[in-house]
Amino acid sequence: VTADLEIICIGNELLIGKILNTNAQWLSKQATLMGITVKRITVVRDETKEIATAIKEALRRKTNFVVTTGGLGPTFDDKTLEGIAQALNRKLAVNRKALIMVKEKYEAFAMKNHIETIELTQPRIKMATLPRNAHPIFNPVGTAPGVRVDTIKTTLIALPGVPKEMEAIFEKTVAPMLRQASGKTTMFHEKSIHANNIMESSLAPLIDSVMHDNPGVYVKSHPRGEENKPRIEIHLSTTAGQAEKPEEKLQKTVAQLVRAIIESGGNVVYDGKTTP
Amino acid sequence: VTADLEIICIGNELLIGKILNTNAQWLSKQATLMGITVKRITVVRDETKEIATAIKEALRRKTNFVVTTGGLGPTFDDKTLEGIAQALNRKLAVNRKALIMVKEKYEAFAMKNHIETIELTQPRIKMATLPRNAHPIFNPVGTAPGVRVDTIKTTLIALPGVPKEMEAIFEKTVAPMLRQASGKTTMFHEKSIHANNIMESSLAPLIDSVMHDNPGVYVKSHPRGEENKPRIEIHLSTTAGQAEKPEEKLQKTVAQLVRAIIESGGNVVYDGKTTP
Repeated sequence: VTADLEIICIGNELLIGKILNTNAQWLSKQATLMGITVKRITVVRDETKEIATAIKEALRRKTNFVVTTGGLGPTFDDKTLEGIAQALNRKLAVNRKALIMVKEKYEAFAMKNHIETIELTQPRIKMATLPRNAHPIFNPVGTAPGVRVDTIKTTLIALPGVPKEMEAIFEKTVAPMLRQASGKTTMFHEKSIHANNIMESSLAPLIDSVMHDNPGVYVKSHPRGEENKPRIEIHLSTTAGQAEKPEEKLQKTVAQLVRAIIESGGNVVYDGKTTP
Repeated sequence: VTADLEIICIGNELLIGKILNTNAQWLSKQATLMGITVKRITVVRDETKEIATAIKEALRRKTNFVVTTGGLGPTFDDKTLEGIAQALNRKLAVNRKALIMVKEKYEAFAMKNHIETIELTQPRIKMATLPRNAHPIFNPVGTAPGVRVDTIKTTLIALPGVPKEMEAIFEKTVAPMLRQASGKTTMFHEKSIHANNIMESSLAPLIDSVMHDNPGVYVKSHPRGEENKPRIEIHLSTTAGQAEKPEEKLQKTVAQLVRAIIESGGNVVYDGKTTP
């Protein structure tokens, strides 16, 4: 059984279409490559109740990991920690370890910029105000620490929304946890081929039969061409340990699919070659 | 009261990080510009139960509009209509109007490609198999029709996942509905300025006080620089009718914010000019 994960992205900028959700894609890809199944991505506004509701829903689904992005900074609309506290029915309190992390960041900043001292104002202390029994995670790039909360079924991890900070904390602290949960050998393997001259609706029964003959391999078609010039990307993937020989399995599935497409009058672009 | 909307994107490719969710951003932006509030984006896998659950949750929140993307095509993993049927507890049946739409698409394709006839196979009929009392929406670009279902509180609209098809159906059929729901005059207005030489945590109290003095204007900071070289984008927005003079309101808010930042020792880039 592989572990599963949900991503909750917090930020109005995502819901007004101001920015593309690159964080969700990056996290999904990293987790998938480690053999973790990403079950759901949810994007909510900077409102405590919205955040709390989304987290409660994910916890109710007993997802192994919930990773949030955004809302950890110093401004009034950084409400993720409030949302987590509300979802878990825990109080918020200044966390000593987190406060040291924040303080050291401002001391380093003051030193580098030749400022005598930077006061620990309320917005700065806010970044160290965590739900009870939460653990701050060192942020190698920015000021706001990440946060980990362990519940009975779920490990909840809150990461900053700034991509560089999110990625740095993920790589240093979250990735090792996920790797351990998925088992060292379980990995995601994938291949893509392109089919021309065959409509997606003609491809559908071929995919059905190829998937039937190759259990564990998922085959999905993605139309890429124009309405009257069908060009379809076919993506094959499997999540498995090395003992199951996933690469061989994918190769065998590709070969069968290529034969079926050619028999139906289509042609295939694979590894840079067009057949027939 | 403005109308609200949720987006549900269906597709494993989004949850394995294969592609960026450009559909969600595009839809969010369009809806926001029309004065509609996008409350939530949910991304789920190609599984009937997952889709049905996400739709039921959105309906329970009494969202005015729910727009889904993806899962309308001919392959086995196109399960959106099954998911909608399950969420609404309605049976699926071949829809006569939808079948005509699909049939005409294949006839046109056959004609252009000098094929005598294209059989209406099961995967093709599948695209015209809708939940009872659903309405097909003509797809000007691709084969699978969009689908509209009216429930008591919510208008549910299913769009294809191929961006060109999704955008074409949205612009032709969905945009007019949203414009009517939001009222013709309510629109989204926004401005961005950039602040240098001021930390986000120093900006936080300035934003608080500027927002307090300018009700209806939302001000959000987005760190864009390095840890030791703060550079912050500040995004100001308001959703309002012309009678409320939104542009004047934003200008006034920007002016107050710029003064406050300069007084705190920062400088501002706005309209291409740096002050001071």
